[in-house]
Amino acid sequence: MSRAFFSPLALLPGGWARDVRLEVGDDGAFSAVRPGSSPAGAAQLGPVVPGMPDVHSHAFQRAIAGRTQRRGPTADSFWTWREAMYRSLPRLGPDALEAVAAWLGVELLEGGFTRIAEFHYVHHLEDGRPPADPALLARRTLRGLREAGLGVTLLPVLYAAGGFLGAPPTPGQARFTLDLGGYLDLLDALAPELGPDVRLGVAPHSLRAVPLPMLRALLDRTPADLPVHIHVSEQVAEVEACLAAHGRRPVALLMDEAPVDGRWCLVHATHVDPDERRQIARSGATVGLCPTTEGDLGDGFFPLVEGLAEGLRFGVGTDSQVGRSAAGELRLLEYGQRLIHRARVLGLPPGEQHTGAALWRGALAGGAAALGQRVGALEAGRRADLVSLDPAHPGLVGLDGDGLLDALVLGPAEDAVDVVVVSGDVKVRGGRHLDGARIRRRAAKVMAEVWA
Amino acid sequence: MSRAFFSPLALLPGGWARDVRLEVGDDGAFSAVRPGSSPAGAAQLGPVVPGMPDVHSHAFQRAIAGRTQRRGPTADSFWTWREAMYRSLPRLGPDALEAVAAWLGVELLEGGFTRIAEFHYVHHLEDGRPPADPALLARRTLRGLREAGLGVTLLPVLYAAGGFLGAPPTPGQARFTLDLGGYLDLLDALAPELGPDVRLGVAPHSLRAVPLPMLRALLDRTPADLPVHIHVSEQVAEVEACLAAHGRRPVALLMDEAPVDGRWCLVHATHVDPDERRQIARSGATVGLCPTTEGDLGDGFFPLVEGLAEGLRFGVGTDSQVGRSAAGELRLLEYGQRLIHRARVLGLPPGEQHTGAALWRGALAGGAAALGQRVGALEAGRRADLVSLDPAHPGLVGLDGDGLLDALVLGPAEDAVDVVVVSGDVKVRGGRHLDGARIRRRAAKVMAEVWA
Repeated sequence: MSRAFFSPLALLPGGWARDVRLEVGDDGAFSAVRPGSSPAGAAQLGPVVPGMPDVHSHAFQRAIAGRTQRRGPTADSFWTWREAMYRSLPRLGPDALEAVAAWLGVELLEGGFTRIAEFHYVHHLEDGRPPADPALLARRTLRGLREAGLGVTLLPVLYAAGGFLGAPPTPGQARFTLDLGGYLDLLDALAPELGPDVRLGVAPHSLRAVPLPMLRALLDRTPADLPVHIHVSEQVAEVEACLAAHGRRPVALLMDEAPVDGRWCLVHATHVDPDERRQIARSGATVGLCPTTEGDLGDGFFPLVEGLAEGLRFGVGTDSQVGRSAAGELRLLEYGQRLIHRARVLGLPPGEQHTGAALWRGALAGGAAALGQRVGALEAGRRADLVSLDPAHPGLVGLDGDGLLDALVLGPAEDAVDVVVVSGDVKVRGGRHLDGARIRRRAAKVMAEVWA
Repeated sequence: MSRAFFSPLALLPGGWARDVRLEVGDDGAFSAVRPGSSPAGAAQLGPVVPGMPDVHSHAFQRAIAGRTQRRGPTADSFWTWREAMYRSLPRLGPDALEAVAAWLGVELLEGGFTRIAEFHYVHHLEDGRPPADPALLARRTLRGLREAGLGVTLLPVLYAAGGFLGAPPTPGQARFTLDLGGYLDLLDALAPELGPDVRLGVAPHSLRAVPLPMLRALLDRTPADLPVHIHVSEQVAEVEACLAAHGRRPVALLMDEAPVDGRWCLVHATHVDPDERRQIARSGATVGLCPTTEGDLGDGFFPLVEGLAEGLRFGVGTDSQVGRSAAGELRLLEYGQRLIHRARVLGLPPGEQHTGAALWRGALAGGAAALGQRVGALEAGRRADLVSLDPAHPGLVGLDGDGLLDALVLGPAEDAVDVVVVSGDVKVRGGRHLDGARIRRRAAKVMAEVWA
């Protein structure tokens, strides 16, 4: 069914335009985007911007979000958090994964995300054994995200080792591990799920979890048009272990050993030295920054200001699924940069005047590249994903164009998300997901069982 | 009218208690708090915690929040932000101050704040002239906050100089400046506003704006039971100017020259050296931390982990009014500490096991002290301020006691605030302020006029 929307002010690739008619074809892509049009017969929206891609998600972690903030027997860190995450795994079966993914999808849509890169590594059943259908848990997670209405780039994860140089996996990692053959079977098994709103990518988990020969073999077998995502340099201890094993830092090692290019998303890359940062910028890869998770885990600050000056591309991800909105992630990212530089409104790329708008546009471009989908802009041929703002919000009145995005991202208008559309379908209206009450109720029931 | 609430689980001074009946007297204070009671005749709530005091607010700044994120002619900083704030002042008349304060109050209540320390320094009219009633603008701001339902500690601000050693005020500061006589008249004029939910305190703006002899004279004339709030050491340039003028850093100077004790709230104190930090802890003063504002302005990180180990007391404030929730401020505070220490769940005071709960309890204690009101605990004689959480929220099910506060502050349950009560009156239900639609509509109308 073809549909049409009308916005008095929309952010198009060439800049803000007035009286824009957005037509959506039967395939869920924009068929036409026409400024200076009449509103006749179209659904009326407020100011409209492209929906935000979420470049890094582990949907199942929403089940444990907020439940690992307790003092442990040792000094707490990323690594003790990871042990807590492993301990929760036996509680999370296929039904829980699906219900939690749907709940997550509801909230991310309400927060202005329209599409997600799901970095999925829970492949085996609660007892660690593989299911008869190797894609069962990826499929159930995907079904939850799709039920809420998110577009998805599904990234099944290759997780083979417990540390550098092929150290064996630990018992806590039993649900994740596959050899390369098993991984390729998993990709094949997921083929029937693909479509205009479900794309596939590959995800070697990290240089810890995928030995270099296996990484090369995987990349040799990966079709040239698939996105490649990998965790890299999140923790200082990881950098030190990589130096000890390979004599090089993780990003430098990856750049030497793999053909990193614009298809790649390097997740975190927190602890890069200036050479590594410049190598990433030159490669065209996107850095996947996950501000809430990196704050929760105390990872550190990525040098974004310096990277932007070198043309580095970035996207934002919600990762461990504590964060709930695109504006919130961008705000936290910006505050981190301001706090370490003790300055504000810094690091704007050439041509940008407004911080919030520059962040939104930057994360759209990086997000579209990382997801490998035609998204991130309001133009014919792209998926019809958009966020419409409430023009009556007191934090937005009197603002126009980029000022609206400043107020959304860095002002008192984070709750001004009014209507959210994915592939032409309205998923959120008045800031509330249309099916949110039912999906939240089901998630609460499942969570009560999981944590009983 | 006496009222009663019933909660299956409430955070009392001695710890979490079950089946708690909370009775409120005609005066708006708790008359009895009884665990192990029956729910008969009481309004049913979910899990209940004390409402959070907001220790630092400039309500009028909500009018410019998000509207100063644009690249300026020079490198942007706190100081250029301040110029932008000054430029907005001629647009903000008495009606705007009141409407904006009410809008702010609606959102802070929805975010779990129940009481606010309003550090009010816009004393004169748009053209800089004093109004016939010297308390006009303080009164209108107060009226807005009270209309929303917040309890208030009103802190009229003494602002006399433009820099250290009595430098003259700049034209941008024309609406703020009073001499001591004018200030004492202002305090007198506000006396009729006071009551159980409106208390008074004094606020020398900063060591920049109040020369030392005037500070001493003010303190000599201040009744011994009033809270004293002051901005101190927010910016490195301020520390440098203080060293140049007085040969001492701002906190050290203040400790030498003023009888700082438990009545005091030192706002920001970002740039303290270890000696200054220990002096604050010994003094019993509360440090007023404003994480969102300090992030927006790139101020820097207060050394909270070290301070907590020394018994330092803290509260949280929303200051420039970009932030909107108690949980959000505490989360940002905690993330900053984790990021600079590269660790998580750190800095817990003795006896605390849960980070989110320790933060909430810490900010309650500091907040109550800073506001100089009997708040911050569910016990007879304190103001009946509480926040009730939605027990059906999927991020809370299966949690109990301190785990609930972990999920609220650091998990996916920031939106689990269900009912908010101030002095026994329900102000928020289902997460929405009961009069929010009307107050937001009026604020939007006023903001449209201000920014036309």
